[in-house]
Amino acid sequence: MKLGFIGLGQMGAGMAANLLKAGHQLSVYNRSPGKADALLAQGARLAATPAEASTGEAVVSMLADDEAVEAVVLGEHGVLAGLGKGALHVSCSTISVALSERLAAAHGQAGQHFVAAPVFGRPDAAAAGKLFVIAGGDEGAVAQARPILEALGQRVFVLGAAPKAANLVKLSGNFLIASVIEALGEAIALVEKGGVDVREYLEMLTSTLFSAPVYKTYGGLIAAGKFEPAGFAAPLGAKDIRLTLAAAEALRVPMPVASLLRDRFLTLLANGGERLDWSAIGGLAAKDAGG
Amino acid sequence: MKLGFIGLGQMGAGMAANLLKAGHQLSVYNRSPGKADALLAQGARLAATPAEASTGEAVVSMLADDEAVEAVVLGEHGVLAGLGKGALHVSCSTISVALSERLAAAHGQAGQHFVAAPVFGRPDAAAAGKLFVIAGGDEGAVAQARPILEALGQRVFVLGAAPKAANLVKLSGNFLIASVIEALGEAIALVEKGGVDVREYLEMLTSTLFSAPVYKTYGGLIAAGKFEPAGFAAPLGAKDIRLTLAAAEALRVPMPVASLLRDRFLTLLANGGERLDWSAIGGLAAKDAGG
Amino acid sequence: MKLGFIGLGQMGAGMAANLLKAGHQLSVYNRSPGKADALLAQGARLAATPAEASTGEAVVSMLADDEAVEAVVLGEHGVLAGLGKGALHVSCSTISVALSERLAAAHGQAGQHFVAAPVFGRPDAAAAGKLFVIAGGDEGAVAQARPILEALGQRVFVLGAAPKAANLVKLSGNFLIASVIEALGEAIALVEKGGVDVREYLEMLTSTLFSAPVYKTYGGLIAAGKFEPAGFAAPLGAKDIRLTLAAAEALRVPMPVASLLRDRFLTLLANGGERLDWSAIGGLAAKDAGG
Amino acid sequence: MKLGFIGLGQMGAGMAANLLKAGHQLSVYNRSPGKADALLAQGARLAATPAEASTGEAVVSMLADDEAVEAVVLGEHGVLAGLGKGALHVSCSTISVALSERLAAAHGQAGQHFVAAPVFGRPDAAAAGKLFVIAGGDEGAVAQARPILEALGQRVFVLGAAPKAANLVKLSGNFLIASVIEALGEAIALVEKGGVDVREYLEMLTSTLFSAPVYKTYGGLIAAGKFEPAGFAAPLGAKDIRLTLAAAEALRVPMPVASLLRDRFLTLLANGGERLDWSAIGGLAAKDAGG
Repeated sequence: MKLGFIGLGQMGAGMAANLLKAGHQLSVYNRSPGKADALLAQGARLAATPAEASTGEAVVSMLADDEAVEAVVLGEHGVLAGLGKGALHVSCSTISVALSERLAAAHGQAGQHFVAAPVFGRPDAAAAGKLFVIAGGDEGAVAQARPILEALGQRVFVLGAAPKAANLVKLSGNFLIASVIEALGEAIALVEKGGVDVREYLEMLTSTLFSAPVYKTYGGLIAAGKFEPAGFAAPLGAKDIRLTLAAAEALRVPMPVASLLRDRFLTLLANGGERLDWSAIGGLAAKDAGG
Repeated sequence: MKLGFIGLGQMGAGMAANLLKAGHQLSVYNRSPGKADALLAQGARLAATPAEASTGEAVVSMLADDEAVEAVVLGEHGVLAGLGKGALHVSCSTISVALSERLAAAHGQAGQHFVAAPVFGRPDAAAAGKLFVIAGGDEGAVAQARPILEALGQRVFVLGAAPKAANLVKLSGNFLIASVIEALGEAIALVEKGGVDVREYLEMLTSTLFSAPVYKTYGGLIAAGKFEPAGFAAPLGAKDIRLTLAAAEALRVPMPVASLLRDRFLTLLANGGERLDWSAIGGLAAKDAGG
Repeated sequence: MKLGFIGLGQMGAGMAANLLKAGHQLSVYNRSPGKADALLAQGARLAATPAEASTGEAVVSMLADDEAVEAVVLGEHGVLAGLGKGALHVSCSTISVALSERLAAAHGQAGQHFVAAPVFGRPDAAAAGKLFVIAGGDEGAVAQARPILEALGQRVFVLGAAPKAANLVKLSGNFLIASVIEALGEAIALVEKGGVDVREYLEMLTSTLFSAPVYKTYGGLIAAGKFEPAGFAAPLGAKDIRLTLAAAEALRVPMPVASLLRDRFLTLLANGGERLDWSAIGGLAAKDAGG
Repeated sequence: MKLGFIGLGQMGAGMAANLLKAGHQLSVYNRSPGKADALLAQGARLAATPAEASTGEAVVSMLADDEAVEAVVLGEHGVLAGLGKGALHVSCSTISVALSERLAAAHGQAGQHFVAAPVFGRPDAAAAGKLFVIAGGDEGAVAQARPILEALGQRVFVLGAAPKAANLVKLSGNFLIASVIEALGEAIALVEKGGVDVREYLEMLTSTLFSAPVYKTYGGLIAAGKFEPAGFAAPLGAKDIRLTLAAAEALRVPMPVASLLRDRFLTLLANGGERLDWSAIGGLAAKDAGG
């Protein structure tokens, strides 16, 4: 397929490379241009604007936040302006449910197709094509997007016909991860102050009831108190909890653990945590306990 | 070995049977006597009092709560009175850190050995000898207990020289499970109100980041809203969170998620949840959301 | 002075009447026109647009929320367009800190003066000129506004040179009131279930340590369980807590009680509380307790 | 009347002096004897044991906590042993609802009368006879106690026929005060970080909606950050919240603000706050906000 890719950060660069490997023609755009060099060497073409990257059958975007997506899609020389009738926009960014809804409406009015396809996984999984992809959109659009989604991830889950459902699911997933970080942080603070060896404790937990990857990854980080460099930075975690709470508010769903996580992130950011990994909120319980 | 077993409830009956299967001689005691029949048929002998069940090399107890353990061990004709010098008490019950400390002191003063060995697993795992055993005690006592522990569980984790450390770890584990139930309850309330199919959502979660058994088990119960019959009853869950908070208070460790869980259990019990499974707290978020 | 007044709701109508009584000439505007009749009978003139109401020395606005203020001030034929250089806008609405900052900037760029002057008090206090006025703005602008502010309230408090400081203070005040409602709701749920007569309990509280008006007003409403008709509707209370949390997030101040209040309002609104007084959140603790 | 008084701490000393001033004969007991000297000079007699102080028509006790009351009343040479049939014990200590119930039962079985009469007020109010007294007990016992209660306080509130109801009310009152401290702490952290002068802010609050003494007292302490010397020490505040939560748990009343206060006190005590005034929890929000 003739594709575009917008947003060549830690995640996007690996994802774009996988589209090239899968044999697609790729036109790439990034706000700061140096990021495209490796992809150009692999055969991608450089687009001067998001609109120019959107002139093929489909364009994929992977950006940091609502503001970036709004600018790139709805702004001047944006995706909306460049994309042809019947062509497809696959939005992989973790954005608000409200913006996803606006994008779906705008593309629909322009006769374009839209699939929200946020992903779970860190940059290494993006580079390896091992992401988990959560897709939302109408049946035709998702079918159109499938070859792209399968090149990006090890598995594609289609959840609901509305694109925004996929965004909601992605946010809820990050909420669940953050809740694991918080609960582990409290449990570790408790047993450590009670004289238990934390590494042996985690070894026990993760080889019995809590064998999921998130417990291993984040338990290890909290036990080591090692929150730099950030794999996923605290301000991004704070943003995702904010978007979760915004979606919950719109749907009138009280989420007390999410509220607590919000307060934890604010505490972290107010005390110099800007550059830490988001799992640093898992160290706050021990700090409150005098550690 | 010549052993005793006290407490033939859903968990204890299976555990005692495994000690018989492993070739040990077993004297059994239960407050209500009918519970022993199956074991007697398999070769166990009936003891008239806890003391009488404690005259061998070691006695194992598996009881519901602090009150039961206190009565059985420290009461008249109790374990303390029956156990010989150098003999061993293996306490598998989920009890408070404070009581574990008192038991350790009482056995020590009597020249007896004491190992706390609470277990993770439901009745089916107990019957199959597939429990995870968390052991705490001094090295000699744990060595003495090892053949017993290995007959009970698929794996034994020794965490710390003080018996009470094992009890703290067990409580923290139940806290972590309850925190999963709460977080899942909030996430499910959110995505369900957002129009996502909850079964597909759980299938996605548990085949990606949250592949641990607790997510599968409790996610399924919450999605189905099926909290009867209780595998682990709400009042027992409430008790374990209370004991976690008591241990945390003694150690001065603030645990906001545990505080929230306490309030959830009180809400559940105040609204007719006595007989439900403890995972019923995972339905409260949806109820607050108007469901 | 030659003044304008925009927003003739329950609060604004009384406030505008007090400006007339104080001898000012008044041009009034309301989106739905019938609301102005009583004031016209007292000598006010009807303005066709916000801009037309803003052609005097100063214009006062009292509107429901950010959206209304944005439309009236920054929209077509708005205050900004109508107000002359050196003239003054006094904004009494309870709005976000962020919007207050935008309004200050916009008026400043237009060579106009801006004072934020949110008020404490219910409609009866507005009609009686007994409001408490919280004013923020530069010294000259506040001096210019003083005759107006003194006609509206029994007392004027100037807190900080930035208009947004006054909005922050107003939001924090509503947060404090809501926290009283919540705490009273919990205390009442507790003592009532413990067999104490709630009216005698409140009589005791409000004649001793808690003699402030908020305890009398809201204690009485909660004890009676009488939340209709709404003096201040639940959705407005929910909005003010949302704005408080937004301001707190921008300043990175974690506020756990505010987070709890947010969840309480969502629970109320998700369960049919749209039309109730905001003090209805004070009934939720008793409901959780099975009442 | 011929009375006894047990517990001559900061509160009790002033209370006992007021009973002397009211013309009663007084036999006094304190664990550490030096505390009685001033009262002996005013005409009191020294009792060697609580029992000896309890041989008159009534005995009043004012002690620090459950442990002290249990020892003094139920211990050897205790109140229960010394008090005659038909004589009265007035318990002014802030104790658990459960212990109050036990005391009522024990005195009842011994044919003695029991009134729980916890008080609101600091040591200066105790010395001035300006306490607020919350009394619980059956009608006859309260009538018997009335001359005593009126000598101790400026006003007596009888709330419920069960003594324990008075203890519950007293605990709920301390909970309400602590919730004011917490809410003020959050509001002050917010407006201070937003550039508002905190003293002017408090002056505004306490001369408008929040004119109650607790806002003036605790607002001033939090604004000044001055938590030493302790008027009411943090460990006592922590104890009262613990007893409130215990009573709430027994009655199955979830109290999320009380849960938060529990966590605040644990944080304070885990970080060197042992000797501070309990209002120091009002400084934690600002600390979390990076202050």
